Amino acid sequence: MVADHFVDDEAQEFLAEFGVQLALLSQMAEAGNLFAFTRRIGGGQGCFGFIFAHRLSNPKAFSQNMHQRGIDIVDALAESGEHGVKGRLIGHSLQASSDSTLAKKGCAAHGQGEMAAQIVPLPRKQPEASIEPMLAITASGMNQVNQVILDRMQSEIPLIPALAGHLISGGGKRLRPMLTLAGAQLVGYNGTRHYKLAAAVEFIHTATLLHDDVVDGSDLRRGKAAANIIFGNPATVLVGDFLFSRAFELMVEDGSLKVLKILSGASAIIAEGEVDQLTAQRKIETSEERYLQIIRAKTAALFAAASRISAVVAECSEDEERALDEYGRNLGVAFQLVDDALDYDADAAQMGKDRGDDFREGKMTLPVILAYARGDEEERIFWRAAIMGHRSSDEDLAHAVTLIAKHGAVEETRERARHFAARAINALACFPDGKARQAMEQAARFAVARGY
Amino acid sequence: MVADHFVDDEAQEFLAEFGVQLALLSQMAEAGNLFAFTRRIGGGQGCFGFIFAHRLSNPKAFSQNMHQRGIDIVDALAESGEHGVKGRLIGHSLQASSDSTLAKKGCAAHGQGEMAAQIVPLPRKQPEASIEPMLAITASGMNQVNQVILDRMQSEIPLIPALAGHLISGGGKRLRPMLTLAGAQLVGYNGTRHYKLAAAVEFIHTATLLHDDVVDGSDLRRGKAAANIIFGNPATVLVGDFLFSRAFELMVEDGSLKVLKILSGASAIIAEGEVDQLTAQRKIETSEERYLQIIRAKTAALFAAASRISAVVAECSEDEERALDEYGRNLGVAFQLVDDALDYDADAAQMGKDRGDDFREGKMTLPVILAYARGDEEERIFWRAAIMGHRSSDEDLAHAVTLIAKHGAVEETRERARHFAARAINALACFPDGKARQAMEQAARFAVARGY
Repeated sequence: MVADHFVDDEAQEFLAEFGVQLALLSQMAEAGNLFAFTRRIGGGQGCFGFIFAHRLSNPKAFSQNMHQRGIDIVDALAESGEHGVKGRLIGHSLQASSDSTLAKKGCAAHGQGEMAAQIVPLPRKQPEASIEPMLAITASGMNQVNQVILDRMQSEIPLIPALAGHLISGGGKRLRPMLTLAGAQLVGYNGTRHYKLAAAVEFIHTATLLHDDVVDGSDLRRGKAAANIIFGNPATVLVGDFLFSRAFELMVEDGSLKVLKILSGASAIIAEGEVDQLTAQRKIETSEERYLQIIRAKTAALFAAASRISAVVAECSEDEERALDEYGRNLGVAFQLVDDALDYDADAAQMGKDRGDDFREGKMTLPVILAYARGDEEERIFWRAAIMGHRSSDEDLAHAVTLIAKHGAVEETRERARHFAARAINALACFPDGKARQAMEQAARFAVARGY
Repeated sequence: MVADHFVDDEAQEFLAEFGVQLALLSQMAEAGNLFAFTRRIGGGQGCFGFIFAHRLSNPKAFSQNMHQRGIDIVDALAESGEHGVKGRLIGHSLQASSDSTLAKKGCAAHGQGEMAAQIVPLPRKQPEASIEPMLAITASGMNQVNQVILDRMQSEIPLIPALAGHLISGGGKRLRPMLTLAGAQLVGYNGTRHYKLAAAVEFIHTATLLHDDVVDGSDLRRGKAAANIIFGNPATVLVGDFLFSRAFELMVEDGSLKVLKILSGASAIIAEGEVDQLTAQRKIETSEERYLQIIRAKTAALFAAASRISAVVAECSEDEERALDEYGRNLGVAFQLVDDALDYDADAAQMGKDRGDDFREGKMTLPVILAYARGDEEERIFWRAAIMGHRSSDEDLAHAVTLIAKHGAVEETRERARHFAARAINALACFPDGKARQAMEQAARFAVARGY
């Protein structure tokens, strides 16, 4: 049992990135000691770490502790129901319990029981939940992006800039292009290519919003009358098409086939996700799994692509590309979960969106899925009628909010978002700590904590 | 005055491609002789030829004669109002009167009056108007394209292939991908890249049709219930987006930035054209010029791109690329003109489209523009009401057809189409005669002559 066989420099560095310190032990007698083993797996899904224990007295407490540090290994434990220690080994990747073969492989390679380490949290400050640092680090770049957006939404057909401008100047957060800019800073990119590409990302997003408004028959968007209400459905569809084409023109001007591949692939996935959402609409039996699949496609795919392309223009390694993809993807899922929670959050200030839109459109979002699953027969009768569109008055909406609150479904939806935000933060572990990484971490926490 | 200073081999070859023969003259005394000067201009807008005369006794007869041979130089004369010979020189490019500076330049370079030639038509057979040869030469390639289309419209979301398949298997002519295949044959391309790209072209077209159906609120498309009627507007919009994204995925797989540029540019122009058409709708004052601008964008841009990309994959010269672009562009204008004529043609068999759709939607197509321009005050009152949507019964439509027939507006619209078809055929002059070129010429004639 020689500890330094295991705790090599690489493993130390890796754990240090997560804000933990290894203290070597020659004994593993005390309850609560962790026998830990970590390594970096290259060529996989970004950065991995895994931990196993011969004996773990309180895995749940450890789980929560680790979770707060932004390592979701123990979520994997929780998900696989291994709260009690059944055997001598608990091994999971950071990513998901399905990766436990990797843990076993790593474990076998190093031999069990030969290494021991106690994990001691360093006093690394928890990043606050805030979007402000992200806004600050991308502010000057976003001026460039906004200029491209304004320039390239022009057309000799006056209706095009009028309609596009209505939405584009309508106070959107421009979170997606901001991800491209923040990612570029994270990887130390000093060029200018990302401005055009970030504008392309925003055009794709804007096109999707315009088509969404037609699809949903929305009245409001970002607190203003939706484009389709002012300009009509036909113009809204066609200007969406125009912006979508412009997005591709911008990408072609940039000239990277890799970027084109990432963004054309994301666009197809978004469209699939939107159609999938449509087919799940008014279907009370929609599962949480199906719901997650939909939001991964309709929302997270573009977040992932927006982040990833920053690594492409900076000619980063495949691992870094994947890490940024994972950051964006998990952030996107977290973001959409919170969006969907806010539609039923009695405490939330409503910004822009019509309160209760999802409810009236019979969209099967997670708060509804959870409240339905936990409801008694009377509640389920209500939900079936409501999702079918037979209970859509303001009183019905108020009743839905009450039922969702009763079952803690908003809070649980946020809890799910927290899980994905933690994974987003984990994904950044392979990048050096600094302003950009901290801003991106804080943005991920903000995505969960926001009340609007 | 030495004739052979001018009629060099290149000029002879060039004129021979147009089916004319040069007979040298040492005298230019007789009325009706043409003092002709032709040359090939490289680096310009494809192939040019121009002719000037010191004295031209009957320029109109010459015009018609040349027109039948598929040379539209004299259309340029007609357009610039130079039927009467004002000066000693008449010079125009084949393309448009705006190119007359080239003629002057060429003229100056060779000196006026030094060369004389009589143009004698060769007995070259007029190609028939038929789409059959085009269908025949592209049949086996279209099997490949159709396979790509079927493969790539698939998705795990069952609604996507269901909706896309409804339109795609709905008996469309697939004229646009056929242009890519015919173009590839014309330039002797032996590879397989054009199959995917032709499928991408058809996907862009299909996406546009789906969105058009939503925009127009169409009931019928290709003789079947339109997708929006069966599947609803939301799904129709979103599946259109999906196909559009798939088109870009196919292009990215091919990997040519040049093709991507051509097709993303065309897509943006199509969307602009569609928006422009929307803003011109129900506006009785829409001019013929504005109408032409709209159909150039909404229809001809994709015809041009579909043709052009065949030259790109075959790595042809810029001139050949431009020539194929011009062929497709002019064919597209001709095609749309005839489509618009057929909507008011009392004799035409109606295929697919709802008879009178354009009328009820208040679309300002050329037959209406011409009939309105030539109508008396009573007729104009009718047209204003009809275009505003206040006269849209079957009787009103019948009255509209009668008024249009009275002013020969359908025939004149076809006459305009004939002009553009002739230009399309001219554009092919720089390619060797053969099966492909003849099929493309016949297709251009068919686009004008068709009754459905």
